[in-house]
Amino acid sequence: MERAVSKTLVAEGVLSANDALAQANRETFERAGTYVINLMSSPGAGKTTILERTLARVAGTLRLGVLEGDVQTTLDADRLARFGVPIVQVNTDPGFGGECHLDANMVRYGLTALPLEDIDVLVIENVGNLVCPAEFKVGEHSRVMVSAVTEGEDKPLKYPLMFRSAELVLVNKVDLLAHLDVDLARFLRNLDAVNPGVARILMSARTGQGIEEWCSWLMTQRSRAAT
Amino acid sequence: MERAVSKTLVAEGVLSANDALAQANRETFERAGTYVINLMSSPGAGKTTILERTLARVAGTLRLGVLEGDVQTTLDADRLARFGVPIVQVNTDPGFGGECHLDANMVRYGLTALPLEDIDVLVIENVGNLVCPAEFKVGEHSRVMVSAVTEGEDKPLKYPLMFRSAELVLVNKVDLLAHLDVDLARFLRNLDAVNPGVARILMSARTGQGIEEWCSWLMTQRSRAAT
Repeated sequence: MERAVSKTLVAEGVLSANDALAQANRETFERAGTYVINLMSSPGAGKTTILERTLARVAGTLRLGVLEGDVQTTLDADRLARFGVPIVQVNTDPGFGGECHLDANMVRYGLTALPLEDIDVLVIENVGNLVCPAEFKVGEHSRVMVSAVTEGEDKPLKYPLMFRSAELVLVNKVDLLAHLDVDLARFLRNLDAVNPGVARILMSARTGQGIEEWCSWLMTQRSRAAT
Repeated sequence: MERAVSKTLVAEGVLSANDALAQANRETFERAGTYVINLMSSPGAGKTTILERTLARVAGTLRLGVLEGDVQTTLDADRLARFGVPIVQVNTDPGFGGECHLDANMVRYGLTALPLEDIDVLVIENVGNLVCPAEFKVGEHSRVMVSAVTEGEDKPLKYPLMFRSAELVLVNKVDLLAHLDVDLARFLRNLDAVNPGVARILMSARTGQGIEEWCSWLMTQRSRAAT
């Protein structure tokens, strides 16, 4: 029993250090006037494809920047490079022990390579993972989740922490619904069970469905932050 | 720099304790004559649906048991209950701090509820996560991964540790290939780049494609373990 108590205390210490750095990041964002979104999902839910669509759509009207988090590779940053916006890739392996999430310290390192004063909205694309990223604040103004319908209806119930912490859920890959044994209404009921009434956009990054609504949401958040 | 060194030492200590418990689990499996598979994937890749198909297929020829790992809920165990095989659910939250993976200690707790002597093959369905489960041995004889084609071609490169540690990769949801912008050949090249020549089965748990081949693989592993 004593061991369990000591473990809890250590975890609390780690979270407090992270929270302190998250607060410092947040102050940096405020000074620069940059609105920051922490974008989270399972691996392969479509975060990067959504960002490709988004960058194409808002070009000229909103200055986006991206901080890409991955365990390894710069594949996602490479995909987005053609849009000519500020992008930095943070790999958790090897520099940060191969961690399965971004934390405030990793984001702090990434920020040194970003011209925040030229960025209206910074999207932090977290490591693909439905558990750990939700446990670490990085200084974001809001959290957005991507949940692909191909993952099944039960995910909000099985990974409630992340679904509960999201302000907006992008329900992606809806173009595949006709080919799946997945009941969208049941997914939405499960979503409401853990985060009642949370904003959601039905989306297909492949066909473009929902991208306009999502970009409008981005613009609205940006305006709110600026006032 | 000193702080980084001390962090590394702590992590090594944790892994060693886990390895010791994994070895103890392995000895328990050997005594009972049970062959044990650690089944890993992203959330929603199809592990439980594959198990449903598998249990229906091997009924009467192979005595399967399942240890279900999830952060929360008993949804997966509930889905498999109708097959009447021994199943135990291990939730990492709250008892184990909401961890994003199973470790040897959690499996050790789960085993107390399983009649191993009546189980030929035990499948440990790990928490849906492409990073952390690969870092923790639980005493398994082999690791099998499920990777759904809906997750995209780049996952072996982005999450190499898990793909590298698998002896067999079940490439699931191939029935959806016609509706995706995913190049299967490219996925397989990426797989070979991190784990050259690893065994793989193209599968659709939805249509049943690949299930027979997978069940044959299970039978072969079982025979090998028994000799």
